[in-house]
Amino acid sequence: MPNLRPILFIVAIVLLALAATMLIPAGVDYAYGNPDSGIFLSSAAFTGVCGATLALATRCHLTGGLTLRQAFLLTPLTWTTTAAFAALPFQFGHFPELSLNYANAYFETMSGLTTTGSTVLVGLDLTTEGILLWRALLQWLGGIGIIGVAIAVLPALRVGGMQLFRTESSDRSEKVLPRAQQIAKAIVAVYIGLTAVCGLSYWAAGMTPFEAIVHALTSLSTGGFSTSDHSIGSFDNPALHWLVTLFMLLGSLPFVLYVRTLTGQRDALWRDNQVRSYLGFLAAVILPLSVWLAASNHFDYLDALRMAAFNVVSVVTTTGYAYTDYSQWGNLAVGVFFGLTFIGGCTGSTTGGIKIFRFEVLVIVLRTHFRHLIYPRGVFPRRYGARRIDDDVLGSVIVFFALFFTAYSLLTIALMALGLDFITSASAAVAALANVGPGLGDTIGPAGTYAAVPDSAKWLLSLAMLMGRLELFTVLVLFMPQFWRG
Amino acid sequence: MPNLRPILFIVAIVLLALAATMLIPAGVDYAYGNPDSGIFLSSAAFTGVCGATLALATRCHLTGGLTLRQAFLLTPLTWTTTAAFAALPFQFGHFPELSLNYANAYFETMSGLTTTGSTVLVGLDLTTEGILLWRALLQWLGGIGIIGVAIAVLPALRVGGMQLFRTESSDRSEKVLPRAQQIAKAIVAVYIGLTAVCGLSYWAAGMTPFEAIVHALTSLSTGGFSTSDHSIGSFDNPALHWLVTLFMLLGSLPFVLYVRTLTGQRDALWRDNQVRSYLGFLAAVILPLSVWLAASNHFDYLDALRMAAFNVVSVVTTTGYAYTDYSQWGNLAVGVFFGLTFIGGCTGSTTGGIKIFRFEVLVIVLRTHFRHLIYPRGVFPRRYGARRIDDDVLGSVIVFFALFFTAYSLLTIALMALGLDFITSASAAVAALANVGPGLGDTIGPAGTYAAVPDSAKWLLSLAMLMGRLELFTVLVLFMPQFWRG
Repeated sequence: MPNLRPILFIVAIVLLALAATMLIPAGVDYAYGNPDSGIFLSSAAFTGVCGATLALATRCHLTGGLTLRQAFLLTPLTWTTTAAFAALPFQFGHFPELSLNYANAYFETMSGLTTTGSTVLVGLDLTTEGILLWRALLQWLGGIGIIGVAIAVLPALRVGGMQLFRTESSDRSEKVLPRAQQIAKAIVAVYIGLTAVCGLSYWAAGMTPFEAIVHALTSLSTGGFSTSDHSIGSFDNPALHWLVTLFMLLGSLPFVLYVRTLTGQRDALWRDNQVRSYLGFLAAVILPLSVWLAASNHFDYLDALRMAAFNVVSVVTTTGYAYTDYSQWGNLAVGVFFGLTFIGGCTGSTTGGIKIFRFEVLVIVLRTHFRHLIYPRGVFPRRYGARRIDDDVLGSVIVFFALFFTAYSLLTIALMALGLDFITSASAAVAALANVGPGLGDTIGPAGTYAAVPDSAKWLLSLAMLMGRLELFTVLVLFMPQFWRG
Repeated sequence: MPNLRPILFIVAIVLLALAATMLIPAGVDYAYGNPDSGIFLSSAAFTGVCGATLALATRCHLTGGLTLRQAFLLTPLTWTTTAAFAALPFQFGHFPELSLNYANAYFETMSGLTTTGSTVLVGLDLTTEGILLWRALLQWLGGIGIIGVAIAVLPALRVGGMQLFRTESSDRSEKVLPRAQQIAKAIVAVYIGLTAVCGLSYWAAGMTPFEAIVHALTSLSTGGFSTSDHSIGSFDNPALHWLVTLFMLLGSLPFVLYVRTLTGQRDALWRDNQVRSYLGFLAAVILPLSVWLAASNHFDYLDALRMAAFNVVSVVTTTGYAYTDYSQWGNLAVGVFFGLTFIGGCTGSTTGGIKIFRFEVLVIVLRTHFRHLIYPRGVFPRRYGARRIDDDVLGSVIVFFALFFTAYSLLTIALMALGLDFITSASAAVAALANVGPGLGDTIGPAGTYAAVPDSAKWLLSLAMLMGRLELFTVLVLFMPQFWRG
């Protein structure tokens, strides 16, 4: 059993920060004269008191860093606890067309904090500014949170092959946290800076300031919550569509590379293996798709390119903004978008999914294996850029794939057992695990919501969003008896 | 470029055997007074002449065995060439409700030779005995063919982790064939013996002698072709259902173990890792499913057990006999059966699919990996029974999974591009790759056929059946430029 004290102390600090953040929608609702202002205030007070009590009870110095087990425990515990408190405004807030029970409120919150973007809300266009902003803030906080975890915690835990991204300067001990604090500042500055540029651009392109802020918060975090039931489809503005595509893309690149670019290494992005494969992959999907779209649906070529780029980038970056219902483009489009739901962006970004570097490692493994079949005595080193892929990385990546598809299969069957049909279950499972958001089919497709899904399925999907967000291992390891022993 | 002479000589011998086999349905149709007798005779003559010409042109001694590349080339070449000739009776034969073009005839033949059991024929109950027997014979020959390949060829090629099943006595050189000939006799004897026992049992349980022969040929080969559009559903006979379940199961166990059991090692089956996991897995699926079935559909418990056992065994052994349309049992059943389609039986049997031992290896890898996450400095040897799983086996198994799911995804998307809907594409892809046969949905579900699928999709599915049957690598390696070099 690991020492819980420092973990709980960190959770308490996060709760205090959450309480402070709740004051923002409280103020906004007050300014707009909306009824939920008091609900945000009391949620903030309750969260603040709980956080302060926990902080006082567990007060300690964190200079020693965390052990391996503490770090494993910290991430899921922070996410679930934060979600439990952040759900309060959804449960008690006022909505035009529904009132949410706790299953719905928790689902919406977890969907926010994991930057998934699945929603149970109907009537967003009539929803108060406070709630809309709160959803966006949750995604924004979840986005920066996961970048921190992906850079500082996961590589040290040797999770899912992310040890490939340990920088040379990182110590290889089991102490995790100090490095996190050291990198945090630069990343946070870039994240805030990009969000500001994004919001200003959206405003300049024609959104209202409020819409621009909300969408900036949910673009960079590749979250996908919007201010309208029609999502980006409610803006009939080609320039804006291209801008949104651009900022989703920026949110899906490794944030460390932005820091390196700004601190002198100008070609950091273009020289990165993963970024190059990623952009190449996107081009290889978008270009043929837009030609097919123009030919089969008689669109103008530039419109087809815009629609293909927007929707492909929205799914691959796991943002999940809807703009057109691509399931209307025919069966091929449904198949392609279903496949794209698994992919994900670059590691160290705000995207979910399997992520590009794991596919790259897999391709390297396959190529080496086939060469070896033909030349049994040949020696073929496995390299990823300048680095050798050692057995540890290889094993982690492979196990990640195995876990992802096992979790995916079991989740699909479980959702079918709860009464959902085949396409809804198969697409909801991956949309949750890969943190994409919308699925396929009439219920949860790009034009639908998760409102009609039964509560039991919502709890299951909330767990799946968390597992996917924390790269599976981090959650699953807690279910091993050995973890809690000695 | 490998020396083709010995490969073509073997193909020629197989064609001569095929021509001889065509004389059986020719004789049967003659005895029944059916019109297709002459068509089988002329197909036999054509195949025989082609085979004899090729044999004379490539005549050589095979005592030297085959090189690695020759062995890789031999298997797909034999299957595709045999299918090309074996399709002739289907194309020129008389059917009650349709006439087949070559795409349909080739699909039906490949479905037979790969023991898949997908059919394009409608009106089986009115079809002539010769055609029904020919389909069954193709599955029976395909079944024994794949056992030979799985035991003698694939382990030496180090394909898909099957090197785990190299027996101690096998030489580790690149010469493949001698060992095949040495084991062949005992296996063939067991296969013939079990088929005879099966046929006699079916006859005793109430089938006509002709029905008993056809179903015996397609049970042991886990093929699944039947004499009726309603498959086993046309026999309202619980005892027979249990018998069919038993013989499908016997066809899905490693045939080498039967030989060992008969040659003195009485507990060979029960002591085998894979067999134990396999039977345990089947019990773990069948028992809860029958309880659920009895409870949710108000069946008698014994009936529910019979129905669950029959359908689960039919899908897991990749036989694909239909008996009840399980998609009527509700969404949970659809999900479970979809998942089961991937599994497959034991290696060295007539079943397709991913196969039990690969899942066992995967579980071992996952367990070791998680232990290693918690105890980074621990040493955890990977063992499968008494054998150590070395990196070569591990890599092959992993690559098999990767290839299977990659092929599966691309095939699903391709089928959707050809206009099939989501559930038809997703289930047809795995039903072909895993050699199961029936898919899900209205078109190709347990109550349907592949008749309505477009020809382009039939060619694609024929290729998928072949790839699945030959464990993917064996076909894919031929697409590597390096294979043909030096």
